[in-house]
Amino acid sequence: MVEKIKENDYVLLYLSPKRTYLVKVEREKEFHTHKGFIKLGELVDKEYGIRISSSTGAEFVALKPKIRDYIFKSQRRTQITYPKDIALIVMFSGIGPGSHVVEAGTGTGALTAALAFYVKPSGHVYTYEIREEFIETAKKNLTRANVINYVEIKNKDITKGIDEKEVDAVILDMATPWLVVSHAYQALKPSSIFVSFSPTIDQTIKTVEALEQNGFVDIQTFECLTRGMQIKPGKTRPQTLMTAHTGYITYARKTKKQ
Amino acid sequence: MVEKIKENDYVLLYLSPKRTYLVKVEREKEFHTHKGFIKLGELVDKEYGIRISSSTGAEFVALKPKIRDYIFKSQRRTQITYPKDIALIVMFSGIGPGSHVVEAGTGTGALTAALAFYVKPSGHVYTYEIREEFIETAKKNLTRANVINYVEIKNKDITKGIDEKEVDAVILDMATPWLVVSHAYQALKPSSIFVSFSPTIDQTIKTVEALEQNGFVDIQTFECLTRGMQIKPGKTRPQTLMTAHTGYITYARKTKKQ
Amino acid sequence: MVEKIKENDYVLLYLSPKRTYLVKVEREKEFHTHKGFIKLGELVDKEYGIRISSSTGAEFVALKPKIRDYIFKSQRRTQITYPKDIALIVMFSGIGPGSHVVEAGTGTGALTAALAFYVKPSGHVYTYEIREEFIETAKKNLTRANVINYVEIKNKDITKGIDEKEVDAVILDMATPWLVVSHAYQALKPSSIFVSFSPTIDQTIKTVEALEQNGFVDIQTFECLTRGMQIKPGKTRPQTLMTAHTGYITYARKTKKQ
Amino acid sequence: MVEKIKENDYVLLYLSPKRTYLVKVEREKEFHTHKGFIKLGELVDKEYGIRISSSTGAEFVALKPKIRDYIFKSQRRTQITYPKDIALIVMFSGIGPGSHVVEAGTGTGALTAALAFYVKPSGHVYTYEIREEFIETAKKNLTRANVINYVEIKNKDITKGIDEKEVDAVILDMATPWLVVSHAYQALKPSSIFVSFSPTIDQTIKTVEALEQNGFVDIQTFECLTRGMQIKPGKTRPQTLMTAHTGYITYARKTKKQ
Repeated sequence: MVEKIKENDYVLLYLSPKRTYLVKVEREKEFHTHKGFIKLGELVDKEYGIRISSSTGAEFVALKPKIRDYIFKSQRRTQITYPKDIALIVMFSGIGPGSHVVEAGTGTGALTAALAFYVKPSGHVYTYEIREEFIETAKKNLTRANVINYVEIKNKDITKGIDEKEVDAVILDMATPWLVVSHAYQALKPSSIFVSFSPTIDQTIKTVEALEQNGFVDIQTFECLTRGMQIKPGKTRPQTLMTAHTGYITYARKTKKQ
Repeated sequence: MVEKIKENDYVLLYLSPKRTYLVKVEREKEFHTHKGFIKLGELVDKEYGIRISSSTGAEFVALKPKIRDYIFKSQRRTQITYPKDIALIVMFSGIGPGSHVVEAGTGTGALTAALAFYVKPSGHVYTYEIREEFIETAKKNLTRANVINYVEIKNKDITKGIDEKEVDAVILDMATPWLVVSHAYQALKPSSIFVSFSPTIDQTIKTVEALEQNGFVDIQTFECLTRGMQIKPGKTRPQTLMTAHTGYITYARKTKKQ
Repeated sequence: MVEKIKENDYVLLYLSPKRTYLVKVEREKEFHTHKGFIKLGELVDKEYGIRISSSTGAEFVALKPKIRDYIFKSQRRTQITYPKDIALIVMFSGIGPGSHVVEAGTGTGALTAALAFYVKPSGHVYTYEIREEFIETAKKNLTRANVINYVEIKNKDITKGIDEKEVDAVILDMATPWLVVSHAYQALKPSSIFVSFSPTIDQTIKTVEALEQNGFVDIQTFECLTRGMQIKPGKTRPQTLMTAHTGYITYARKTKKQ
Repeated sequence: MVEKIKENDYVLLYLSPKRTYLVKVEREKEFHTHKGFIKLGELVDKEYGIRISSSTGAEFVALKPKIRDYIFKSQRRTQITYPKDIALIVMFSGIGPGSHVVEAGTGTGALTAALAFYVKPSGHVYTYEIREEFIETAKKNLTRANVINYVEIKNKDITKGIDEKEVDAVILDMATPWLVVSHAYQALKPSSIFVSFSPTIDQTIKTVEALEQNGFVDIQTFECLTRGMQIKPGKTRPQTLMTAHTGYITYARKTKKQ
């Protein structure tokens, strides 16, 4: 009755909070790290959460990947939407099981995977991506995260228009979100929600201006910072470094135009 | 086909980001604010998102409440778990549609409502609350948020034990989370996740120590800060005041004990 | 040999960190608070640091005011430069005993008082203020802070030019700092420092552009946040509220133009 | 009349905000960087602020070092008191020209240099350091910063007692500040100020407890965060990384014991 690791499952090999590896369990493969290699075949039929030693004796734990792990591992170093931001985007967008969501751009599919995870099984994500070279990567990541069935990837320019109607949310993580605001207004159900994530203040200002001119209310922009704590009896303190900025989240609700 | 406001629906009357009111649409009722009153009957059969004038001419918008609104409006001033924290707790816990979750304490049901919203329709929340006086309030809030069917409220002391087995997450927002760690270990599926939210550093230290002694790995503590921005062409700046602290989030994964 | 409170000295009456009063010790006066009144004459010839009871039995402490107290008490609610910002402005400007400093605008003299305090006795502050109505308030505050002798207040528009040459720093807390950058370049000693404090990002961008075009290097902008901690055994945590924003500090060094 | 660079002066060679070098101008020396070398002799008799090309054509600026530069360059990577913290310590301590200050530990002399800079020429810093191996480094750094004449370095254990009386401030950056609180009370003028800087919350709690038991009031603890901004037209945003923690600053004023 306890869930076992099966061949071709993905496991998260955990060494430390900063050293985790998302790997596919193939029976004949070895997975090599700076701490020696692990024979992946040994994991088959074991329980998730089991400890396993590498060839050099380092202890790893074979964890079942969660949505946060798929998000983290779907990203390229260059443009990261952090789990903290994704968590807030999901909460502020109001989406949940059954929601229909338009998203752009798809990128590597990290945010897409999260959206699909929370709207499944009866909801759906329509994700727009103009850069063809991302489509395959996104598909691979969405498949690995077990959410590909809830996503339609569209190789289209969302600044030209949105095909869907009566959607529950439009969520943007792209260079020119302000060009999508009037299309988002058309696509959204009345009273539904627009969310945009932008690294720069300039993008944010343009987006807010477009929202004000297009019948949105409750327009709010904020940023989110997380700071790790080092918890040790007698030595407790915040961690030394933190991410100072990922992006600004702008949120608004559609209202009937006057 | 467009969704209409029906009698006995809840609407969020929006005046400004800081002035919103969650009210039940009763045909004969007036809703009074410092900006005059609104005849609620006038909203019936209107579209969500409609603008409506109060008796003094102030313009309100009748929005469809989202999960974030239900959370905000479920809380008493005294002990608030903020949407930002709830968003992160949900993301880090790994729960989603279909998950089975144990939570304590229920309190006014704000976090419970969020958990139920994200696990529905096939998942379930088992929430423990020792203080009987909260049960009725929680029920009312969960009913209003349309998630009561996905929740079992238990008037029991979780520090004495957890009835459920093989759950996907144990989520705590209570005074003594460290007393629940060993029970959480028993209740969790292998490799599944424990999350605790505590205002003080002392609670956090005790909880982390208990996690270290009870077979959890990937133990991480962090805090989340959100800062609002005032976006106005020529006058853009962060807002003047912010919440400096709500609580520390501690997260861990169950592993097989050695 | 221990310093005594004399008639007409200012004392800081301390009730709690948030309840302090800067008052002049006049022999026949009573000082009234919400916790009863204090007969100021009783303080004469007492040691600084003495505890004194109000008419209702509340205990106050008669402290010797420090520069930080004079700063805090010189300000109007509407436009506050916080001690944290003043501290950083002083440190980054490189000024110290003997420095000659140009400042604008004077306002109520809070920043002026700090600058004068740190450059005295052999340095001097030349402070420009175009709004005549501030001059008297500034004089009063600078006199009370015992630094009026180290300050020249000029009722002049600094955007029209700076009279001084070879100064060690130009420090601006005014609406249009970018209009002063070229004058600052003329007034500064080679290699000396420009600092500007602005609430909005728009002011900051214009100022940085002007600095880049006017022979400055090492141009840096940052913001400073302070967060109070509640330290209590068993209940230690950050405070609930904090100031989220006062202003951006922009800093640069003059170099020879190419 | 313009200040010239003289032989044996220190200059700050500036390449970028993150690439600066504090070097002594020796006529026959070359200073080597990853961007080629600079013939230091060429700087003699030049104006501060001059631009100079390295052997590979990279442009450096020869700046006059300020107190902040001496602080930064006095530190070892391992234990840094940041200029932001030093600025706040100075401001909150109330010291200025003429103040007499007790400090511990000396370490590499970074904080000592700042304190001496602000109390000179008529004030003095008495700095305690138990670790003999630091004394020579501190002397060298204080000499380079031109403040050695205002400092007495004492190779003594301050937890055993403070020799000085009637000082204006006691400032601690050491492992066990709570062991110094009662000595600080004896050494301070009535109403004068104690400041302590500690990386961990545990040190801070012990120190606050000692202050409460030893006749101090206005006890406050806070932390300071600075966040850099990238200011570029069209691309303005906070920087990606920041220091999340250096230490907690605890501040208190001596009052007469009851």
